[in-house]
Amino acid sequence: MEGAIKTVVMQYLSSARGKESLGGKNFQKLVQGQLGNILSDTDSASAVKDMMKGLDDNQDGKVSFQEYLTLVGYLANSLSEQKSTASGHEEAPKH
Amino acid sequence: MEGAIKTVVMQYLSSARGKESLGGKNFQKLVQGQLGNILSDTDSASAVKDMMKGLDDNQDGKVSFQEYLTLVGYLANSLSEQKSTASGHEEAPKH
Repeated sequence: MEGAIKTVVMQYLSSARGKESLGGKNFQKLVQGQLGNILSDTDSASAVKDMMKGLDDNQDGKVSFQEYLTLVGYLANSLSEQKSTASGHEEAPKH
Repeated sequence: MEGAIKTVVMQYLSSARGKESLGGKNFQKLVQGQLGNILSDTDSASAVKDMMKGLDDNQDGKVSFQEYLTLVGYLANSLSEQKSTASGHEEAPKH
């Protein structure tokens, strides 16, 4: 699992390209490239923009690492609910 | 990255063995088996117990999925600080 946590961190850092937070375009790229299978509507630029606004707690128009972790936590929660209401023990399904 | 998020979720679900939250022994197993390289002191049962108490917001003696995500977020933050103060672009180092 350590590798999984590292993957989540490295994905943000490489998307932010050395900056402290993720601008709109880079956030869109990350979401479309990395989360297209578990999020719906990632093809729609306006849906991604709305998602970004929802995450942007401090309203600076960017997604900080903390705000990004909020998204990861939200996705983890959704997956957890799906899995535990299903069999609870199945392996990751294909999407 | 979707696989990474799934791994984090499945790890909890399989450690909890179908239950809603993680008891002390199962938490200890998870931490020692899965996080021994990025957490220090996982060999010490009392250190793991202290960590569990720190996470256990609702003081029920167990680790809920939310409380587990707090730990994952904490680890992600630590890794992120390490990486961004280092080169910022290196791949996951061996540990």
